[in-house]
Amino acid sequence: MKDTLRGVAVVAHGGGPTQVINASLAGVIEEARRHTEITALYGARHGIVGVLQESFLDLTEQDPDVVAAVGRTPGSAIGSCRRKLSASDYERILAVFNAHNVRYFFYTGGNDSMDTALQVSRLARDSGYELRVIGIPKTIDNDLAETDHSPGYGSAARFIAHALRDIGGDNWALPTPVTVVEVMGRNAGWLVAATALARQEPDDAPHLIYLPERPISEDQFVADVESVYRRLGRVVVAVCEGQTNEKGEPFGADLIQADGFQHKLAGNLAHVLAQLVTRRLSLRARSEKPGLLGRSSAAYISETDRQEARACGEAAVRAAVAGQTDQMVTLVRECDRPYRCTTGLAPLEAVANVERRFPLDWIAPSGHDVLDPFLNYAAPLAGPVEPRPTLKQVFVPRRLGD
Amino acid sequence: MKDTLRGVAVVAHGGGPTQVINASLAGVIEEARRHTEITALYGARHGIVGVLQESFLDLTEQDPDVVAAVGRTPGSAIGSCRRKLSASDYERILAVFNAHNVRYFFYTGGNDSMDTALQVSRLARDSGYELRVIGIPKTIDNDLAETDHSPGYGSAARFIAHALRDIGGDNWALPTPVTVVEVMGRNAGWLVAATALARQEPDDAPHLIYLPERPISEDQFVADVESVYRRLGRVVVAVCEGQTNEKGEPFGADLIQADGFQHKLAGNLAHVLAQLVTRRLSLRARSEKPGLLGRSSAAYISETDRQEARACGEAAVRAAVAGQTDQMVTLVRECDRPYRCTTGLAPLEAVANVERRFPLDWIAPSGHDVLDPFLNYAAPLAGPVEPRPTLKQVFVPRRLGD
Repeated sequence: MKDTLRGVAVVAHGGGPTQVINASLAGVIEEARRHTEITALYGARHGIVGVLQESFLDLTEQDPDVVAAVGRTPGSAIGSCRRKLSASDYERILAVFNAHNVRYFFYTGGNDSMDTALQVSRLARDSGYELRVIGIPKTIDNDLAETDHSPGYGSAARFIAHALRDIGGDNWALPTPVTVVEVMGRNAGWLVAATALARQEPDDAPHLIYLPERPISEDQFVADVESVYRRLGRVVVAVCEGQTNEKGEPFGADLIQADGFQHKLAGNLAHVLAQLVTRRLSLRARSEKPGLLGRSSAAYISETDRQEARACGEAAVRAAVAGQTDQMVTLVRECDRPYRCTTGLAPLEAVANVERRFPLDWIAPSGHDVLDPFLNYAAPLAGPVEPRPTLKQVFVPRRLGD
Repeated sequence: MKDTLRGVAVVAHGGGPTQVINASLAGVIEEARRHTEITALYGARHGIVGVLQESFLDLTEQDPDVVAAVGRTPGSAIGSCRRKLSASDYERILAVFNAHNVRYFFYTGGNDSMDTALQVSRLARDSGYELRVIGIPKTIDNDLAETDHSPGYGSAARFIAHALRDIGGDNWALPTPVTVVEVMGRNAGWLVAATALARQEPDDAPHLIYLPERPISEDQFVADVESVYRRLGRVVVAVCEGQTNEKGEPFGADLIQADGFQHKLAGNLAHVLAQLVTRRLSLRARSEKPGLLGRSSAAYISETDRQEARACGEAAVRAAVAGQTDQMVTLVRECDRPYRCTTGLAPLEAVANVERRFPLDWIAPSGHDVLDPFLNYAAPLAGPVEPRPTLKQVFVPRRLGD
């Protein structure tokens, strides 16, 4: 049994907001109230930058109804940032924590953020400053190690599955020969894979799904598109923003720098691929990029994801109060049918800067689809995709020739 | 009182599907059942192309529950097309109608489709073939003349208002200096104007709204962005896909051909504008293009829009059975508060090929916002935009210097 540690807790957000990062925040706020060891709870305004600038929102005295409402809302209610810290930044963080008697630090983020949390904890220990640091997982990319999945992924998967269902329906009604949809996910195929949840029938969109774990040559891409077009007369392609050709290049798309961690992403990959199709196959092609809506749409919050995000926030507080540190909360799948998950803990060291990529054995041999084990994995996280009703296909006999 | 006309009715869809074109279809199907003059109802598969190919879905014997469910679903359940007809195509349409004893033709579409409907009607009259033709308005662009607004607009406005609310929330949490959001609407500013419905507070996104009715120079655009950035440190811009500079050019964006009617639209306008900002102001800028989701998202159907779309389908059938022809159903606003609308009729001749653009006196003198009369006009069509809850902004006093 660890000693009781009394002091202030700080919660901060790192990286892109998700549809449920506020649910984790609400979990932290509500759980912190239950522990007298936590004398006050501060929200770092705009992530670690808020810590550096001593910009803290007092979360102790918030109206419980507002906290609950915020917890159902996408985006980060305290703000986030992307910032790679210098050695002097870490010193400053410790000085700020010391000045405010901060003894608990909850950092909600992805693998970069878990590294930041770990560095803060190590410096505190080296300086003899007692601090408990717990990471709360958050990423729509689902690329955090040690956890079955990450809060944020289920809702982003829910959004993109519905997006492909709706884009697919529109495309069925008014076919563009080729539509290329660019999906978030950085270098991991988890999110683009979730577009497969859109299908009710085998020939429903998306017809081709490319994952960055499997680079694809320009020739193969063009051949795949041509093959589907010959069979169906229309092709909806889902491609991850991090997709590359066999040389590791994004098909000539313009790279943009996404954050302070040197992550570079194609700014117009779908547009470039659509142009490629038009040039090589003389087919009209359009590009679609749902973009930020994929992580911010209130209408597509997965209820399972929201509840798990909240549970992760609560578990983080409980673990820290119980004496844990240098851990990230994980989600542990107990059962597939019915789906059931609990929380666990994994060392920050095992998740910091590690990218968990999509399993190669869940990719179809064709290289442009995913297999059933993935669908079984992802379906309970995204929640049900309502099927589109269809009219009875009774055709009137023709009376004229052509 | 016109003579009773007995025969088959054909309903067809023209142009891009909307979130509620199926509601109009359900209205036609359900109303047609009530009139014995209509001996059968056929749905032209993929619009006027279905008529040319005699490809008719029998809508007479559909399950009422399925029809009701389809009526709540985005996209076109019978399919649509974009096709500019030749003289021989019109002759063929008449031959097909004659072969099937088609006496009622309901064409759901925009101003191009209304012209097609009118030409079919004129040819029938010239040939002494009795045919009643009624147009059902449908366009997310809201650019049809003679009607207060068009079915499809309210839901597209609802989508884009929520999109800007959610993108704005994400952008508040993790500011990108400049985000340019490209909105549908062709050459009319109605839809981009609806992004203003996203705002709860004056400084909420979108910070700049550009309408194609007011071309803008590159220099003015850059100056506007710089001015907002200096004040707020972040800028969310909403721009219509049809926006041009003062020379009528789309800022160097690649033009793509959208349909068979020679409508050309920029394929990557937001991307080009984002690059322009980066080049001229050395600010990081990203582009967002919600694209097809803007007209196909099930989650953002406006209930008012859905009911009105259905009422337009019903009114078309009633008007035709009562002896009307060469008319388009219109929506007539009776009252603003509480909002109340009924249906009316306007001659196809007055709407065919006419583009109703956004009123210049609803654009702010600055050229980058809309005025209250527009908000009063659009709010009841889109329905309420739920506000985002915010935490109490109580900050913890600082204890350290910078």
